[in-house]
Amino acid sequence: MEAVDESAKKVEEEVGRVVEQARELQESGASLISRISNEEQSLRQKANSLESSIRRLRSLINSLLSQKLLDPKLADKLEEDLLRARFIITDGDAAAFLPAKAQGRFLRMFLGPINVRASRKDVQLKVKEEYNSYRDRTAFLFLLFPLTLLILRSWIWEGCLPAFPVQLYQAWLLFLYTGLALRENILQANGSDIRPWWIYHHYCAMVMALVSLTWEIKGQPNCAQKQRGVELFLQWAMMQGVAMLLQNRYQRQRLYTRIALGKANRMDVVWGETAGVDGQLWVLCPILFLLQGFEAYVGLLLLKTAFVGVVSEWQVIFCGILLVLMAVGNFMNTVQTLMAKSRFKAKMKRTKSKQELDYVVRNS
Amino acid sequence: MEAVDESAKKVEEEVGRVVEQARELQESGASLISRISNEEQSLRQKANSLESSIRRLRSLINSLLSQKLLDPKLADKLEEDLLRARFIITDGDAAAFLPAKAQGRFLRMFLGPINVRASRKDVQLKVKEEYNSYRDRTAFLFLLFPLTLLILRSWIWEGCLPAFPVQLYQAWLLFLYTGLALRENILQANGSDIRPWWIYHHYCAMVMALVSLTWEIKGQPNCAQKQRGVELFLQWAMMQGVAMLLQNRYQRQRLYTRIALGKANRMDVVWGETAGVDGQLWVLCPILFLLQGFEAYVGLLLLKTAFVGVVSEWQVIFCGILLVLMAVGNFMNTVQTLMAKSRFKAKMKRTKSKQELDYVVRNS
Repeated sequence: MEAVDESAKKVEEEVGRVVEQARELQESGASLISRISNEEQSLRQKANSLESSIRRLRSLINSLLSQKLLDPKLADKLEEDLLRARFIITDGDAAAFLPAKAQGRFLRMFLGPINVRASRKDVQLKVKEEYNSYRDRTAFLFLLFPLTLLILRSWIWEGCLPAFPVQLYQAWLLFLYTGLALRENILQANGSDIRPWWIYHHYCAMVMALVSLTWEIKGQPNCAQKQRGVELFLQWAMMQGVAMLLQNRYQRQRLYTRIALGKANRMDVVWGETAGVDGQLWVLCPILFLLQGFEAYVGLLLLKTAFVGVVSEWQVIFCGILLVLMAVGNFMNTVQTLMAKSRFKAKMKRTKSKQELDYVVRNS
Repeated sequence: MEAVDESAKKVEEEVGRVVEQARELQESGASLISRISNEEQSLRQKANSLESSIRRLRSLINSLLSQKLLDPKLADKLEEDLLRARFIITDGDAAAFLPAKAQGRFLRMFLGPINVRASRKDVQLKVKEEYNSYRDRTAFLFLLFPLTLLILRSWIWEGCLPAFPVQLYQAWLLFLYTGLALRENILQANGSDIRPWWIYHHYCAMVMALVSLTWEIKGQPNCAQKQRGVELFLQWAMMQGVAMLLQNRYQRQRLYTRIALGKANRMDVVWGETAGVDGQLWVLCPILFLLQGFEAYVGLLLLKTAFVGVVSEWQVIFCGILLVLMAVGNFMNTVQTLMAKSRFKAKMKRTKSKQELDYVVRNS
């Protein structure tokens, strides 16, 4: 009986200790959380007041300049200092404590009010790197999937695509574009300077994939004529794959430069960002323009088949218009990006301030 | 000239101060982030070692019990203490520092490696509340959308649904189920004890909505016969809407009880959670069973129309099989939930331990 009592007592003591430790853990967890939120609050206030000081000083400098109360050279230097200060705030560790950009309607629609912002800079870079490798993986499929369909069409299916594989491909496109749009919204919430158009472009592509799913794939007779639209679409998709691969290479090189420089000094990260990849941009652009031209051409051909009366479903007209709009939007945005780059290159030559160039290019 | 010099000097000083403040802010941001991660690390270790102590003690108690070295009544009490300790760790503020459950493939597929876990308990409850209100809003649409289609069908469309509104409805279903599946995965990552089946169920519903989009809506002649499947599907969807509204009421009452009790004492939150809503469960269940029966019936009717040869597309067979599987899965999971509840109710009567009942029900 003594052995029973003793082991019972020992276990009881240990259980009591564990319960006590659990209470302590709960308390230190709660206190850590409240301390974090207090300190974050104070940093947030500091960051906000600093941002408004910077805004105030910039307008002060401008007004002094216009009243000739300030030497233009000094004004340039001060302006640059302020840009650097703003950059330290918005791109450093303190960025986590700036008020979050409101997460767009798209994310709220799919995910609800959950916060997708990573507070640490290295996690944000990892998210971006993963986005790039996701694009890489999908770019290969982008090339492979339509290529396979077109090859099988001439080898096995005797010039007439069956509905199921094409619909599988369209469903994959819908999934892919939804994933890309979600990820890009997440990148944007994490402070990425992605141009809004590229996200809208993926919304359009989502809608088009959805509409194309409801579009009946007609077969014999006159298969070649009826499936002309699908064929063109597949060819365009293959070119899209090539462009995605090239774009990824370019983007990735920019990111690697950032990360590598970031190891030496975080603030150098972006100042030298575009060095060494400008050459590649001039290979990328003609391909992009070619692709955009082909996109518009496919759109116009779809509209033609609809109005000539070969295929008269609303889906054909809708996809045709959407493709033309996407091509025009892509073209305008590519041109704007190039113009921004060359405008600030010219400005750099004038001010000899490479720092400012890269700062502004990054934020344009 | 003096005025110029003076204002220039003043601005220069102010700019210098702002740059200095930005540096300081960056430093305090970086130091806060590193301090947080250190303290989190230490709490994480404590929580882990505590969890393994609890596991060890529970098996120790069991082995002492089997060797008759422990009074069964004392063993029950100790077991309950350990459950409470575990509950304090997993459901209190310390839960934020436990190793995160791996986020499922589904979230990774759509969102990438972003963390969707809220660290604060009140944010987690807010996410759950928003999920419930999302379900409320969609439940009304769930009722309204098919009802409108069916009413318009007999009033305006003379018994024959046009393809476009039905496809619009199917696209909405696809979007809705994708959103629900994403949100439920997020809830799960935030520690919700949602049964995995209900998430799988929404994956199935996503696939079905996608497949139904590729399913051609045939019209005249024999419209009523050809559209029998669509008609049944719409009727089932309406019943689904009613069931969703009832389920939401039930779930919401549970959550409100938790939040209300949580204000008094966080740890009481779940111990009294199911009080007062058991009655509603016995209203909900017959409706759920009726709905599941109807789901299976619609599935079988679809299969019948496919094999009798009225509509012989693969989509009809696929949707029929999927509906039957979903009905069977729903039925099995509802029964399992009820059995778990009544099993632990019986146990409660025996041990007179209401706490343990509710704890186990919540985790079953």
